[in-house]
Amino acid sequence: MKKLLIDCDPGIDDALALALAGGSPEIDLVGITTVGGNVSLELTTANALALREFYRLGDVPVTPGCAGALMGERVRAESVHGATGLGGVELPAPVKGVSDGHAVDFIIETLRANPGEITLAAVGPLTNIAMAVRREPRIVEWVRDFVIMGGSYTRGNHTPAAEFNIRADPEAASIVFRAGWTVTMVGLDVTLTAVVTEAILDRMRTLGRLADLVVPISQFYGIVTAEGGPAIHDAVAVAHVIDPTLLTCVPAVVDVETMGTYTAGMTVTDFRIDERTANASVATGLDVDRFWKLTLEAFERVGERIG
Amino acid sequence: MKKLLIDCDPGIDDALALALAGGSPEIDLVGITTVGGNVSLELTTANALALREFYRLGDVPVTPGCAGALMGERVRAESVHGATGLGGVELPAPVKGVSDGHAVDFIIETLRANPGEITLAAVGPLTNIAMAVRREPRIVEWVRDFVIMGGSYTRGNHTPAAEFNIRADPEAASIVFRAGWTVTMVGLDVTLTAVVTEAILDRMRTLGRLADLVVPISQFYGIVTAEGGPAIHDAVAVAHVIDPTLLTCVPAVVDVETMGTYTAGMTVTDFRIDERTANASVATGLDVDRFWKLTLEAFERVGERIG
Amino acid sequence: MKKLLIDCDPGIDDALALALAGGSPEIDLVGITTVGGNVSLELTTANALALREFYRLGDVPVTPGCAGALMGERVRAESVHGATGLGGVELPAPVKGVSDGHAVDFIIETLRANPGEITLAAVGPLTNIAMAVRREPRIVEWVRDFVIMGGSYTRGNHTPAAEFNIRADPEAASIVFRAGWTVTMVGLDVTLTAVVTEAILDRMRTLGRLADLVVPISQFYGIVTAEGGPAIHDAVAVAHVIDPTLLTCVPAVVDVETMGTYTAGMTVTDFRIDERTANASVATGLDVDRFWKLTLEAFERVGERIG
Amino acid sequence: MKKLLIDCDPGIDDALALALAGGSPEIDLVGITTVGGNVSLELTTANALALREFYRLGDVPVTPGCAGALMGERVRAESVHGATGLGGVELPAPVKGVSDGHAVDFIIETLRANPGEITLAAVGPLTNIAMAVRREPRIVEWVRDFVIMGGSYTRGNHTPAAEFNIRADPEAASIVFRAGWTVTMVGLDVTLTAVVTEAILDRMRTLGRLADLVVPISQFYGIVTAEGGPAIHDAVAVAHVIDPTLLTCVPAVVDVETMGTYTAGMTVTDFRIDERTANASVATGLDVDRFWKLTLEAFERVGERIG
Repeated sequence: MKKLLIDCDPGIDDALALALAGGSPEIDLVGITTVGGNVSLELTTANALALREFYRLGDVPVTPGCAGALMGERVRAESVHGATGLGGVELPAPVKGVSDGHAVDFIIETLRANPGEITLAAVGPLTNIAMAVRREPRIVEWVRDFVIMGGSYTRGNHTPAAEFNIRADPEAASIVFRAGWTVTMVGLDVTLTAVVTEAILDRMRTLGRLADLVVPISQFYGIVTAEGGPAIHDAVAVAHVIDPTLLTCVPAVVDVETMGTYTAGMTVTDFRIDERTANASVATGLDVDRFWKLTLEAFERVGERIG
Repeated sequence: MKKLLIDCDPGIDDALALALAGGSPEIDLVGITTVGGNVSLELTTANALALREFYRLGDVPVTPGCAGALMGERVRAESVHGATGLGGVELPAPVKGVSDGHAVDFIIETLRANPGEITLAAVGPLTNIAMAVRREPRIVEWVRDFVIMGGSYTRGNHTPAAEFNIRADPEAASIVFRAGWTVTMVGLDVTLTAVVTEAILDRMRTLGRLADLVVPISQFYGIVTAEGGPAIHDAVAVAHVIDPTLLTCVPAVVDVETMGTYTAGMTVTDFRIDERTANASVATGLDVDRFWKLTLEAFERVGERIG
Repeated sequence: MKKLLIDCDPGIDDALALALAGGSPEIDLVGITTVGGNVSLELTTANALALREFYRLGDVPVTPGCAGALMGERVRAESVHGATGLGGVELPAPVKGVSDGHAVDFIIETLRANPGEITLAAVGPLTNIAMAVRREPRIVEWVRDFVIMGGSYTRGNHTPAAEFNIRADPEAASIVFRAGWTVTMVGLDVTLTAVVTEAILDRMRTLGRLADLVVPISQFYGIVTAEGGPAIHDAVAVAHVIDPTLLTCVPAVVDVETMGTYTAGMTVTDFRIDERTANASVATGLDVDRFWKLTLEAFERVGERIG
Repeated sequence: MKKLLIDCDPGIDDALALALAGGSPEIDLVGITTVGGNVSLELTTANALALREFYRLGDVPVTPGCAGALMGERVRAESVHGATGLGGVELPAPVKGVSDGHAVDFIIETLRANPGEITLAAVGPLTNIAMAVRREPRIVEWVRDFVIMGGSYTRGNHTPAAEFNIRADPEAASIVFRAGWTVTMVGLDVTLTAVVTEAILDRMRTLGRLADLVVPISQFYGIVTAEGGPAIHDAVAVAHVIDPTLLTCVPAVVDVETMGTYTAGMTVTDFRIDERTANASVATGLDVDRFWKLTLEAFERVGERIG
C-alpha cells in the first residue's frame, strides 16, 4: 500500500479524487489537508470533513491550511464548483471536526516522521506546499513522490495561458517547482481527456447512495465547464499514484510565470532539457479507458461501503 | 489581381514566400520592405535585392526599414537560416539597389495612395508596421487586409511560449495588435503543417534553376529546424492572400505579452470573445494539399520564367 | 547663437519655456514640434500655434507629431494645466497653421541638414524623439546637445516614483536614454526649486500684454500644483541651453523602468558609474537667482516686442 | 518595560541594535529570531548566539528562521558586513545553542501568548515575518507595535531604488506591508543620519571590553559603506521602541515593488493618503543628538555589565 497525503480544495473534482483514493485498496490515506482555492478555506475544509464521513474514510485527519494566496490575491472558481463547492449537493453534516494544528505543520511532520514513504498529492493551489517548503526545505528529500494536478504545456483554462490551480497562487507554484524535487505535473493536457461521458454517468448511476453525490456534481460540472466537458482533473493525479502506468510522462523544465500581464500562472514547459536539469515529469498522455476502469471500480468499493 | 506589399526578413521561408508571390498571377506585388529579424537588416535587404532579380520580379521596389526591435533588443535566428540568411546558398549579385527612403514611409505612402486596395503581409518582426501605425494611425483604415506570419495560440518555437517573429519585437507586436484593425494571424499552429516532405522536395527538383535555390534551402531548413521539419511558415501567409479558402480562421482576442520573464512575445489568444471585441482572425486549420498545389504551381511559373 | 529645436506639449510651463526661448538673443529657434502630453495633441498644437503668434516668434515652423504614447497608453495632466492646457487663458486665434509633414520627419531632417549645430530640447513625453531615434539612429550623432525636462533621481510627481513626462511614455523614454547619446536630464530635483514666488509674480505683472498670459497661468499652476508651488519645470531645460552654468550636472547611468507595478516611468539613476558608462548628465543643482534673472529679462524682451 | 521581540540578521548594525536593546532598562527582550540576510542564516544565528553571551543577555531565546528569500533568491551583503557578518571581529564561542523550533512558530506563539504586549522589531529581510503573517494572520491583531528597519522614500542603497533589507526579499516585504497592521518604517531617509562620527568613536573607546567589539565593527562599517558613512541603521529602529519621541513619523501608503526590472524591492511611498488608508507610519526625521545619548548610555550599561 502507498501512504498518500492529499492537499486539496474540494471542489467537485477534488471530491471525486477523494472517492478514488478512498476506494482504492492500494492507497493508505494518511491525511487530508485543505487550502483556499475553488471556494474559501472555510468551505473546502467543511467539504473535506463532510466527504470524510460520507465516504467513511475513518480517522484520517483533516487539517486546514492557508486561506489565500501567498501574495494575498484571491482567485475563486465558484462559477465552476457552485457556491458551496459541491455543485449544490448537500451532504450530511459531519460529526467530527478538524485536527489541531495547521496544514503546513501537518505536512512537514508527517513527511519528517515517514521519510521516503509518503506520496504527496496536491490538487489545489500550491500555497500550503510552498509554505512547507520554505519552512522546512528538507521535505523535498523526505517525500516519496510529489504529484500535482495543475498547469498545462499548451493552453490554460482560467485564462488562455494559465490553469486555475497555478493561476490562483503563481508565487507558490514558482517556489514549489524550484524546490529541488521532481514535480509530476498532471496538467490540463491530459486531464481534459478524463471526461465524464454519458456512458460513464450511467455507470455512476448504479452506485447507490454514492450516486446521489457523484452523478449530480458531474452533471453540474459538465454544464458549467466551458472547455472539454466535465473533465475530473484532480482524480487523474490520484489515479497516477495508484497506477503510474496510466500516464505517459516526459521530463521537462517547468518555469512558472509570475510577472506577465496576460500570462501570470502559466507553467512554461521546455522539453529541450539539454541545457538545464529537468525539474518536472510532465504528463503527456492518459490511457483513458484504464483510468475510468480504475476509477469506477474504486467508486464501486466506496458505494458498497456506504450502502 | 490583388495588390500586395510584403514586409519581410529573408530568411529561408521568406525567400519561398516571395517565390510564391512572384509566381502567382493573382498577385500584383507593389513593394518589398525589409526589417532586421532572422538576420541583420543589411543581410535581409541584400537577400531581398538578390531574390528580386533571381525571381525576375521586375521593378518592384525594395525599401529597407528598421534594423532592430523597438525597445532595442536584438534577437536573431542565424542558427535556423544560416549566417547569410539563405542557408548558405549564394545568389548572383544583384544589379539594382534599394529605393530611396525608409520602409515605414513607403508603407504609409503606398497605403495612403491606394486606400482600400493594398493587402499588407508582414512575415518578419513587426517593427516597421508598428512604427508606421504610430506615425500614421490611419493606415489601419487604408489597408485592404493585414495578414502576418507570427505567433501561436498553443506553443512557441523561439521559446516554449513565443514564436520567433513576435519574440523578436514584442512591443511592436503589441502596438500592431492594438492598432484597431483585424490582424489575420497565421501562426505556428497551422504553419507547422506546411512541411517540405521528400515528395515535395522531388517536385522541387524539377524546377530548373529555381531548384538550385529552393531545394538546398529547404534541406538546410529541414536539418536545423527542431520542431516539425522544414515548415515554410511565411509562405502560408502569402498563400492565404492568394486563396483565402486555404485557411480556417476564427475570430479571437490576441494580447501580446511584453512583461513576462518566461513569456515575453507570446500571443495570448482568447477565443471567448463575448466580453471583448475580436482584434484578430486566427488561423486554426490549413488545407495542406491545396496549399502545396498552389505553391508548387507558382514555383513552376517562376522556374519557367528564370529558365 | 544656438540653434534650438523644441519638442513640447504646451502646457503652462511649456508656454513659459517658449517665452524664455523667444526672448533670448542667444537662441535661434529653428522649430517647434508638438506631442500629446499635458493635453491632447490637438490642443498642444493649437497652443503652440497661438503662442508663436502671441510671442511674435516669426516663421519658426510648428509641426505636430505623435498623439499618444508608443505603447498606446494615454496619460494626461488636465488637472494641472487646465482643460485647454493654458490654465483657462484664451489667446488670440492664430492666423497661420502647422507646417506640412510630421514632427518625427522634421526632427530628423533638421538634424540631418545641420549636423553638429542643433540643440534639441524635449520638454514633453519623449514619443517623437523615440520615433525619430528608431527611424534614423544617426540623429544621435548629428545633434549638438540633447536636453530634456523629465525624470527625477529622488521622487516623482505623477506617481511617488515617476515624473509626468517620463510616466506618460516610459517605453519612449527607455529608447531615448539608450540611444547612444548623453541625455542632459533636467528633473524635478532641480526644477522644483524654480518656483514663481510672489516677488516673481510682481515682476511679471509689469510685462504689459505678456503679463495677461504669464501671470494668470502661473497663478493657476500655483493653485493646482501639489508639491512645491508653481515650479516652471520646462523653462529650466531651456535656461540650461541659454546658459549652461546655471545648472550643476553630474554624469550617471539612468535606466527607465518600464515594468514595475508602482514604478513604471521612474528614471532610476545610478551615480556609481565605475562599471557602466554614463548615458546621462543629471542636473543636481540650480542657481535659482540667476535662473530668474535670465528668465525675467527674456520675458521683458518678449513683453516689449508684443506691447 | 516594553516586551521586545527582535528579528534580525547580525550583521554589524544588528549587533549594535542588540547592544542598545540589551542595555536599555525600558526593554524586556523576550526573544531573538534570526533570518538569512546580511550573511547566511548559519552565520546570523551563530552571531546572535555569540552576542547573547557577550552582552550577557541572559536566557533570552535565540531561534533560527528562514535561510533564503520567499521566492528563493539570495542577496547577501558580505562586502558590507565582512565574511562572518561582524567585520572580522571574533567573539568568544558561545556555550548555549539555539532554542528548539522555528522562528516563524516562535513569533506566532509569543504574540499569541501575550496579546497586545509584544513589540516586534524586524531589522533584516522580512521573510520570517511574512511567513508568520501567512501562517497566522491574527498576529497583526496580537502585536502591540511593529517596527522595521528597511526601505526608503527617496533613494536606496543596495540599488539606486531599493534598500537592502527590502531588496533581499521583496515578496516578503509586500506581504508584510499588506498584512493589515501599521508598519513603522524606519528607512534610510533617517538612518543615514545616525552616523558614527569620530567623536562617537571616542566615546565608544571608553566602553571597556564592549569597545573591543563596537569600535572595530563601526570602523569596518565606515570604511566599506559607500553612502553616508557608518550609519547604524538597525539601532534606530530599536531606539524608536525605547523612546518614540526620537523620530518624526508620518502616515503614508507604502507599496513594495516586486515586478520592476530596476526597482524590485523599492518601498514606493505615497504621502497623499486621501484616497487610500495608510498602512505605514514613515520616519521622516531623527533627533540625532538624543539618539546618540540614548544609545551610548545603553552601551555604557552593557559595558559595565560585561566588564
